[in-house]
Amino acid sequence: MLSLKHIAINSFNENIAYLHKDCDTYKVDDIKDITKVEIHGGAAPIYAFLEIIDDASILAPKELGLNTEAFSRLNLPEGANVSLSMAGLPPSAGILQRKIAGNILSSGEYNAVVKDIVAGRYSNMDIASFLVASGSFMTAAEVLSLTEALTGDDIIRWDDENIVVDHHCLGGVPGNKTDIIITAIVAAYGLPMPKTAARSLTSCSGVADVFAVLANVDVNETKLKQLIKDNRGAIADYGSLSIASASKIVSSVERSLGLTQQQHIIASILAIKMAAGITHLVLDIPVGPSSRIKSTSEAMRIRKLVEYVGDMLSLEIDAVITDGSEPIGNGVGAVLEARDVMKVLRNKKDAPQDLLEKSLFLAGRILEFDPKLRGGQGYHVAKEILSSGRALETINRMIYAQGKAPQAQLGNLTRDIVASKSGVVESIDNQQINKIGVLAGASQYSGAGLDLLKKVGDKVEAGETLYRIHSVSTHDFAFANSFADGNSGYEISTRR
Amino acid sequence: MLSLKHIAINSFNENIAYLHKDCDTYKVDDIKDITKVEIHGGAAPIYAFLEIIDDASILAPKELGLNTEAFSRLNLPEGANVSLSMAGLPPSAGILQRKIAGNILSSGEYNAVVKDIVAGRYSNMDIASFLVASGSFMTAAEVLSLTEALTGDDIIRWDDENIVVDHHCLGGVPGNKTDIIITAIVAAYGLPMPKTAARSLTSCSGVADVFAVLANVDVNETKLKQLIKDNRGAIADYGSLSIASASKIVSSVERSLGLTQQQHIIASILAIKMAAGITHLVLDIPVGPSSRIKSTSEAMRIRKLVEYVGDMLSLEIDAVITDGSEPIGNGVGAVLEARDVMKVLRNKKDAPQDLLEKSLFLAGRILEFDPKLRGGQGYHVAKEILSSGRALETINRMIYAQGKAPQAQLGNLTRDIVASKSGVVESIDNQQINKIGVLAGASQYSGAGLDLLKKVGDKVEAGETLYRIHSVSTHDFAFANSFADGNSGYEISTRR
Repeated sequence: MLSLKHIAINSFNENIAYLHKDCDTYKVDDIKDITKVEIHGGAAPIYAFLEIIDDASILAPKELGLNTEAFSRLNLPEGANVSLSMAGLPPSAGILQRKIAGNILSSGEYNAVVKDIVAGRYSNMDIASFLVASGSFMTAAEVLSLTEALTGDDIIRWDDENIVVDHHCLGGVPGNKTDIIITAIVAAYGLPMPKTAARSLTSCSGVADVFAVLANVDVNETKLKQLIKDNRGAIADYGSLSIASASKIVSSVERSLGLTQQQHIIASILAIKMAAGITHLVLDIPVGPSSRIKSTSEAMRIRKLVEYVGDMLSLEIDAVITDGSEPIGNGVGAVLEARDVMKVLRNKKDAPQDLLEKSLFLAGRILEFDPKLRGGQGYHVAKEILSSGRALETINRMIYAQGKAPQAQLGNLTRDIVASKSGVVESIDNQQINKIGVLAGASQYSGAGLDLLKKVGDKVEAGETLYRIHSVSTHDFAFANSFADGNSGYEISTRR
Repeated sequence: MLSLKHIAINSFNENIAYLHKDCDTYKVDDIKDITKVEIHGGAAPIYAFLEIIDDASILAPKELGLNTEAFSRLNLPEGANVSLSMAGLPPSAGILQRKIAGNILSSGEYNAVVKDIVAGRYSNMDIASFLVASGSFMTAAEVLSLTEALTGDDIIRWDDENIVVDHHCLGGVPGNKTDIIITAIVAAYGLPMPKTAARSLTSCSGVADVFAVLANVDVNETKLKQLIKDNRGAIADYGSLSIASASKIVSSVERSLGLTQQQHIIASILAIKMAAGITHLVLDIPVGPSSRIKSTSEAMRIRKLVEYVGDMLSLEIDAVITDGSEPIGNGVGAVLEARDVMKVLRNKKDAPQDLLEKSLFLAGRILEFDPKLRGGQGYHVAKEILSSGRALETINRMIYAQGKAPQAQLGNLTRDIVASKSGVVESIDNQQINKIGVLAGASQYSGAGLDLLKKVGDKVEAGETLYRIHSVSTHDFAFANSFADGNSGYEISTRR
């Protein structure tokens, strides 16, 4: 028996158990490899990875240390008697091996895997194996099974509402933050839209990052319900809601690995929407040569897949294929994108027209979920709500209700990337722009990013600024600059 | 700038960087996900995973902590000025993504991946992804590429020898420790056999575990050369040699995941043999319904593959397909297997005949690598060496030269698993026996394991002991007992 000690280390969802190298009870010398153990003594055994401490000021030989994740999972006080054994395989280990071997899994099998993930019986390595193995091939029925498994049992109920709407974009297009404008318009119209938004995964910023520049996005379920009751609209970081926890764990591993497997992304998104109690969803699928989805035929396949999964789950999905050939708006990065969004909502003359038009189009599609609205009227109603100032008024109420954020600073390390020759902007590479933005620090600092002063079709003179890099840290700044010098992401054509 | 501190934690090959939650320089609050960082200040930046400490007695806000692996890699003294940035992707990140997407990789691409793994630029999660992605499909040329990449540049040279031999078994058959007997016979004959042996990966015991019961197996290159010069034979834990380090890292991840992908195993084995300077190898491929390799056609495919890779690398391989239908010998687990091995070498009457015969057969195949020996003579020469006592004399010299191990204890928690009816042992399930042995603690404690008192074809009376479980820890003992009660692994037929 060892005495339990909390080692205050946060390891981002990995359970770690620590033994002193001269542990009294267990012979540690023999352990030469990554070892998974079970900790006994609590209500149920928990799994953890073993690490060895050689510093008695941190852990004594008669103690078992647990990091913050494992300590809170075991749920025993410090000093409690605990014991340790080699971990048996998690119940779904055989299923994981079957998927690695290329087999199709049943709904029950996906449930078993996800149950083990949520229970902390999978290491991040195991999760990575599952994702890579299942990502290489999944049937539509498997995507449905995974979606259901990821949804879990904690579902937000909206008993007073007939329809609850949301919008999601499959991404890959920098600056594409229509969501905030759409939410303001739809809420002003009166449809309940509890928008669950993500932090950036592999991009410069997620919708939650951009709205966090304006307001607090850490919202729990009770608060979310109140916000919707009062204002019809809210934008919450879904990480702050106690739903779809499996999806969060899986996303964290995907982010770390840079995995962007379409079928997992779809299962994950639909699971979050199901868990948030959404009944009607507009899904934006942007297509472009440098977007995540490269061809209309690929977009069509995705549309068929989400329609199938949606039908089986009674989630009404309007999947809309849009133009993803260049970034939307001018700003890339949270502060700059929030600026663009507010320009549109304020009906400013210099508001980015592409962001404005796309928002109206998608908001219109959502409004048409209302049976009272005739087909084709959505866009015009949305336009009227925006131009009348009702959308601005709504966003201001939403910001106030969620908690106004302190003024955010744009990164003050700046550099202008200029045109090497005169001509017309022929194309802008989404991936390259995203990469430069990420290197500039955009996924870490809200004030970092790129301000795109020229868009496709604009005339430029040699030496004129194409875009401005904003950074917060000198290291990021240098990295982004040298990367942009190698390839700016802009192509200029000299034919006029 | 932060001040470097060594946090004496061993994380089994994962680099970990620690920041205090109130770090002066970097805003830690914003980090919500697994994050890979680069540590600057040393000769070259190193990669590490970030964990957050909330205990100033372990780490101060002005310090950057590194675990033992990362601290030794960065190679700076405590107190040195270091800085930190988000990690860029490792150079081979695009290659990994290409493999995840199902592409065939070139030799240069495998080299790039393995180079990043050795340099510590891959996390265990990244390695898991690579293994799962490449394990699902690899061409023979890819297996060759991976073998070459895993071999690395540190190769043991045997300038005084024309041929250097070794033996390896692809495994899956409990108790199959012919290697020690073979090494004694071959060394007694005079061929140099520096046997590089592994600790158990997914089985009850590896060859290194069994020989460690008799002698020290931690042998470095200088010592290995002396041993071979003096005695012609040695058995070294390959983990103690500074060769094929990529292969060790990969094996550690495979072990943790329970991956047994044939093509990786082959690349890994051949890489270690190449790095050990072996010129001639006998590869034992046991086939049986409950062995790792289930059919002769599968064994033939493996033989063709290793012959191809061997030819390309100028490694002479004699791949021998053997009977893997039931465990070899009586003992399963290091102490029990060492007992069987010594019985054979001592020409004891109760020595397991199957272990004896198989060892002679395989040793004979190795002896025939000697051009002076006529084809077909190997077995008889081997038999003469064993029965004359020269093999025993050689193993005793080897044990003395490597360092005699202290007397090992057999686990004293025992339980007899008995026949439920009278009849004849019809079959013994290798996988079930291996599982029960692992649960009994065999892969952790040398004294744990199973003593098989009956083998296929033996008559048994109802209530007679089939095998005896030995455990060291009560928890393992209970686990193994209940598992054996569910399915003993033995099938008894009542026809006589």
